[in-house]
Amino acid sequence: MRVLVTAGGTSEKIDDVRSITNHSSGRLGSLIAEGFLKKQFVVDYVTTAQAKRPTENKNLQCYEIAGTQDLTEQLQKLLQEKHYDAVIHSMAVSDFTPAQSFSQEDFLEELNYLFQEKKGPLDKEDLAQLATPATKDEKKISSDTDQLYLVLEKTPKVIQLIKQIQPEVLLVGFKLLVDVSKETLINAAQTSFKKNQADYILANDLAKIKSGQHIGYLLDKQGQIVGEKQTKEDIAQLIVETINNHYRR
Amino acid sequence: MRVLVTAGGTSEKIDDVRSITNHSSGRLGSLIAEGFLKKQFVVDYVTTAQAKRPTENKNLQCYEIAGTQDLTEQLQKLLQEKHYDAVIHSMAVSDFTPAQSFSQEDFLEELNYLFQEKKGPLDKEDLAQLATPATKDEKKISSDTDQLYLVLEKTPKVIQLIKQIQPEVLLVGFKLLVDVSKETLINAAQTSFKKNQADYILANDLAKIKSGQHIGYLLDKQGQIVGEKQTKEDIAQLIVETINNHYRR
Repeated sequence: MRVLVTAGGTSEKIDDVRSITNHSSGRLGSLIAEGFLKKQFVVDYVTTAQAKRPTENKNLQCYEIAGTQDLTEQLQKLLQEKHYDAVIHSMAVSDFTPAQSFSQEDFLEELNYLFQEKKGPLDKEDLAQLATPATKDEKKISSDTDQLYLVLEKTPKVIQLIKQIQPEVLLVGFKLLVDVSKETLINAAQTSFKKNQADYILANDLAKIKSGQHIGYLLDKQGQIVGEKQTKEDIAQLIVETINNHYRR
Repeated sequence: MRVLVTAGGTSEKIDDVRSITNHSSGRLGSLIAEGFLKKQFVVDYVTTAQAKRPTENKNLQCYEIAGTQDLTEQLQKLLQEKHYDAVIHSMAVSDFTPAQSFSQEDFLEELNYLFQEKKGPLDKEDLAQLATPATKDEKKISSDTDQLYLVLEKTPKVIQLIKQIQPEVLLVGFKLLVDVSKETLINAAQTSFKKNQADYILANDLAKIKSGQHIGYLLDKQGQIVGEKQTKEDIAQLIVETINNHYRR
C-alpha cells in the first residue's frame, strides 16, 4: 500500500529576495505520514524547506518543493509514475501568485493611461492588462517609492489535478477557514467536494488551532461528519484509520 | 563588551495565513555572533523563527521577532535598557508592509469611483486613499476572485533608529543588491552611509551568494573598501576583528 502525503506551506516569489508564504508548520502532515508508516504503508512525502518532516524510515521518501508551479510538476510526475492507494493533501497551497509589481509612480502612470484610453469606467479586461508579465523581470524591487502595488493572479487548483491523473485514488483534502462558526466551516467543506473531487475533507479553523489543540472535523463525500477530534495526533490517527479501514474492509 | 546582532528575515502579515517574507537563512549572522562569543563579548541576538541560531552559550541571549513592527519595538527596548559597543544589523528587513488588499471586483469599483470623483488624472494623494486601512480586517482573504491587488506601504527604516538612541555605538549595516556590477554595489553602499549613519557597511550581491561562496566587501564610512571576502566564515571573522580592533587599539 502506497500513499502520497503533502505538507507544509508554499512560497510564491515576488522577486529574488521576497516571497509570499502560506504558513503551515507541517506538523499534522508529518504525524499523518508517521501513522501510515507504522501501518507498513510506503509513504511519498511532498513538503517545503521549512516544514517539519517525519522521522526517517526505509518506507519514506521526501520530495521538496517551494511554489505552486514546483508542486504541480512534482505531483504530476509522482502520480504518473506510481500508483497510490490514497493522497492526503494537507499542504497549504497559495491561491495567488505575484504577476506584476509597480512603484506608486508607475502604477499612477499605468492607471491614468488606461483611463485616458478608455474615456470611461474600466472593466476587468483593462485590469487584466496590468498583470501582463511582459515587463516582469524584477531581481529586487526598488524600495525607492512610498507605495508598492502587487497584482496577484489565481493559481491553478493543484488538488483538482489528483483525480484527473488517478481517478480511483482515495483523496483527502483540507479546508482551513479563520474564526468562523462551525456551521460556516462545515458548509464550506461540503461545497468544496464538488470542485476538488475529494473523498474526505478535513475541515479546520485557524482560530481553533493552538498549542496542544487542533479541532478538526472529517467529512465524507456525502457531507457527513465521520469524526471530530481535538488534537493533531488524534486527527492524524483518524485519517490513517479511515484510509486503512477502507482497504481492510 | 556587549554587542547586538540581528539576523534572519522579517515576515509581514497579509492576513492570518499568509505573509510576505524576506529570505535570509541567518547563517552569516549566527557566525558573526559566534565570533564575538569566542572573543568573550556578551551577545544579544535578535532573530526570526526560521533563521539559524548560534550555538548556545552563557553569554548569548536570543530574542525572537516576526515583522518590522516587532523588530522596532524589540530594538528600542534593548537599546534603551543596555549599552552596546557595537550593533551588527544583518537582518533582512522588509521595506514594505501590506496595508490593504482588494479583490479584482472591489479594486475596479474603488478605481472607477476615484476617477469619477476626480474627473481627470489621479495623483499620489488619490492612490494613498486606497491604502487607508480603515477596512483592513482580513482574517483570510477570499480566493473567490481572479486577481488580488495588494497595496503595500513603506516601513520605517529600522536601522536609522539605532544611532538615534545610542549615537556612540559602532554600527555595521548591510547592503544587498541582486546581480549588479561591483561598481553599482559599492556606489549603493557608499550612498547608504548618509541615510543610516553606519560606521561600516557590508556590501553583497545575492547573485554571488551560493553554497560555499559569499562575496562581501566591507566599507568604512569614508567609503573605502577595508576588506573583501569570499565566504560567510571569512566575512564574519572580518567584521568581528574590525570591531574588536576598534576597541583594543
